[in-house]
Amino acid sequence: MLVVLRLGHRPSRDKRATTHVALTARALGADEVWVSTKDGMLERTINDLVTRFGGGFIVRTGVKWRDAIKSWKGSVVHLTMYGQHLQEALRELERMNEQDMLIIVGAEKVPREVYELAHLNVSIGNQPHSEIAALAVFLYAALGDAPLYRKLNSRLTVIPNPRGKTVVDEGRSGSDDYSRP
Amino acid sequence: MLVVLRLGHRPSRDKRATTHVALTARALGADEVWVSTKDGMLERTINDLVTRFGGGFIVRTGVKWRDAIKSWKGSVVHLTMYGQHLQEALRELERMNEQDMLIIVGAEKVPREVYELAHLNVSIGNQPHSEIAALAVFLYAALGDAPLYRKLNSRLTVIPNPRGKTVVDEGRSGSDDYSRP
Repeated sequence: MLVVLRLGHRPSRDKRATTHVALTARALGADEVWVSTKDGMLERTINDLVTRFGGGFIVRTGVKWRDAIKSWKGSVVHLTMYGQHLQEALRELERMNEQDMLIIVGAEKVPREVYELAHLNVSIGNQPHSEIAALAVFLYAALGDAPLYRKLNSRLTVIPNPRGKTVVDEGRSGSDDYSRP
Repeated sequence: MLVVLRLGHRPSRDKRATTHVALTARALGADEVWVSTKDGMLERTINDLVTRFGGGFIVRTGVKWRDAIKSWKGSVVHLTMYGQHLQEALRELERMNEQDMLIIVGAEKVPREVYELAHLNVSIGNQPHSEIAALAVFLYAALGDAPLYRKLNSRLTVIPNPRGKTVVDEGRSGSDDYSRP
């Protein structure tokens, strides 16, 4: 089980960034996203998408982050530009050999306690960038390509196409164009 | 030369997402980001960060995207959930063996013409997610770890630290904590 825990989400300001975090988690192989602030609108956005595009991805908001981290049974990885190198961290994770992983990504400033509660603080580069990008690279480096092209049981299926858009809609006949959600 | 071209940026709505795109481009090894809409505030944000954290990253806004693509001398890659598989695309890029690459990422709906002008339409997974995540995975898959931990000539340097934050500020003595920009 692979869960992404998003800290410091402010519904008004971070709506889009946290939606990106959730969709990145889903597309790159996580099972759930937990958000530390209650946000019903975010839940609806993600649940609607899961209904259309399939899979069993779960979103929870209003999660008490300290309890969630302390009671987690597997490894806890915090992504931050201040942590240790990615490849070093991946080797340590292999040694730990845990089934389950909790991956923490912050919005703005992350409480010092998070650095202490995490087994690993991992930097996806030591330059300021994006927690969405950091999550994407970490998941891709840890899990590889496999989750990217898995077939989900869904109403809508996107077929790879080098020259355009092909989306099969099981709810209708034929294929059609869809813009992104 | 590696340039990221961001299409469809609306300064009010997309400020943060495009900032994420620009910082992701910089952290993962691109040389420049070009944005199709004029946005002086975005330019200042990125330029301030480059001043503090170093490197020669360049941001241009108000770039005419059609001209930019048509006059580009190297390969043109468009990231979209509708394109061909990543590994397939990386093999084609190796065959093309171009020095320079233009990577296009959209905001919302991308004009059909972009699909036709690009040499490759590449999907980082065929699930809806984030253009920031797609850019991050593409750059990481194409360039590897090297750009992530390169040493830039800068006032501020982040030192990897498994248990906290270490930032060396050449403009002051000692080290200090900085939150993200």
